Amino acid sequence: MHMDLVAALDIGGTKIAGALVDGRGRILLRAQRPTPAREDGDTVMRAVEQVLAELTAGDLWREVTAVGIGSAGPVDASAGTVSPVNVPGWRGYPLVDRVRAATDGLPVHLVGDGVAMTAAEHWQGAARGHDNALCMVVSTGVGGGLVLGGKLHPGPTGNAGHIGHISVDLDGDPCPCGARGCVERIASGPNIARRAVEGGWRPGPDGDTSAAAVASAARAGDPVALASFERAAQALAAGIAATATLVEIDIAVIGGGVAKAGDILFTPLRRALREYATLSFVRRLTVAPAVTGTDAGLVGAAAAALSGTPSAEVASRSAVGG
Amino acid sequence: MHMDLVAALDIGGTKIAGALVDGRGRILLRAQRPTPAREDGDTVMRAVEQVLAELTAGDLWREVTAVGIGSAGPVDASAGTVSPVNVPGWRGYPLVDRVRAATDGLPVHLVGDGVAMTAAEHWQGAARGHDNALCMVVSTGVGGGLVLGGKLHPGPTGNAGHIGHISVDLDGDPCPCGARGCVERIASGPNIARRAVEGGWRPGPDGDTSAAAVASAARAGDPVALASFERAAQALAAGIAATATLVEIDIAVIGGGVAKAGDILFTPLRRALREYATLSFVRRLTVAPAVTGTDAGLVGAAAAALSGTPSAEVASRSAVGG
Repeated sequence: MHMDLVAALDIGGTKIAGALVDGRGRILLRAQRPTPAREDGDTVMRAVEQVLAELTAGDLWREVTAVGIGSAGPVDASAGTVSPVNVPGWRGYPLVDRVRAATDGLPVHLVGDGVAMTAAEHWQGAARGHDNALCMVVSTGVGGGLVLGGKLHPGPTGNAGHIGHISVDLDGDPCPCGARGCVERIASGPNIARRAVEGGWRPGPDGDTSAAAVASAARAGDPVALASFERAAQALAAGIAATATLVEIDIAVIGGGVAKAGDILFTPLRRALREYATLSFVRRLTVAPAVTGTDAGLVGAAAAALSGTPSAEVASRSAVGG
Repeated sequence: MHMDLVAALDIGGTKIAGALVDGRGRILLRAQRPTPAREDGDTVMRAVEQVLAELTAGDLWREVTAVGIGSAGPVDASAGTVSPVNVPGWRGYPLVDRVRAATDGLPVHLVGDGVAMTAAEHWQGAARGHDNALCMVVSTGVGGGLVLGGKLHPGPTGNAGHIGHISVDLDGDPCPCGARGCVERIASGPNIARRAVEGGWRPGPDGDTSAAAVASAARAGDPVALASFERAAQALAAGIAATATLVEIDIAVIGGGVAKAGDILFTPLRRALREYATLSFVRRLTVAPAVTGTDAGLVGAAAAALSGTPSAEVASRSAVGG
């Protein structure tokens, strides 16, 4: 018998991951599908249902008490719907209803993926013990979440901390969200790679034009690759400094694929932070890599299911312990 | 006998205002001095003491139970010190101690001026009834404060909501704070005027080169004056949208001298907000002019004194009702 066993879903623009997670944050079973992000909404949902089918097939499923979802945002936790920027087929998509239907009516808890990752890092990662923190995922997109006054701050709709879509360059390049110069438009993995290619960087014989390949080139001293990461670091620093200036955080935790670049990202990031976080009350701000890694979304979604408020329409049915 | 009579100080880069304020927010006595902002710290403090001397001279003073201070930021409410960007003589200045010494040891409550204005607007202004709000002062500087989840959110040091010094133009002009492209560097009154003059606008026979004069010219159709306000509106919109995207506010309230430009500011601001506040959960955001006007700082400082936590070192002495 596993105490507080929950199912967790981590829904992003490239993959849909699922897991069964226990009350100590251990992952007992996994399933995963690529996200058919360019397909219609029902096709995307079928991939979610395939992940859930793998989780519900085993004996452990009988002990599952709730489902937590961390989804690419924006989400609307109060309505139970999701509208991920990178999944155009889902606009106001009733994900909570559909997941509940696929899991025999279990309570379903929805948060944005940035909030989920933040819950994970505050529970068992680099933000543990910090009362005021920003946690970020820098990957295909850029997401985030906030801990304020010692507690997760999802905001009324579950989207607070959405740092990828604040503009740090008001005359900058158009962003798919409709604004200009968003942090994500400058600092996401695809944009780091795009900028390197535009600057004349060429991939090796394997043809790999990912941000990871740009990071390898930067590590080997390629100036164009270095400059692309420095620009990303500058945008992240401006966004982190803005967040600290607005809500007084003392740590920014950064995870996601781009953070795997390590010093190639963190060294220019810390340097740029000194340029943008200038006021006395934000100068103590530190930056740390995330600890929970690629499982952050799953662990955080589980944390939401274990302790959070279920999405609006199932609130009265919740039987999940705190 | 006045219930809950408090003294309030509103300390800015151009003036130091003081008042006695009752528990309903009515101002019963006023005093004011220009801020000798370029002088040394003790000279600035003497101006504060002159304001306090006028307040303590009358019969009403005997009923005063506490002092509230809203000061240009950054402040450090936990240390009782202030370091206003526009008052270089005050860096880590022990304002709380000095004011307590000048007021026979009354409890002293310190918040940033943006937080004070926010307390006023949430108490009796345009943010009343809103659980998630940003309130701003756009004047010589640009300040702000936040209401989150129905409560004032000053942050650990009393500076949260400091929107004037978030960068919305990461390659932009250097700001006195040390960063680049801050909202204040683009949208404050002096910067609106500077940009108009640089663009070729010339004042009338009275030689008035204030933002108010630029607003008059804009109202008469001067394209350079209009463009300067439009640029300010764009920066404010990017900052407001960033705040909404980070913490989910549903209203932004704008006061201060520049907001008196009315439609000259608010029309392009609302247009620009539609460009920058694009995600589903921030599209409902509205903008409203402040109601409490030039007394916002005093009323908000009084609100802090009436209901707030006194600054750290006097916490045990507080005798103020909630």
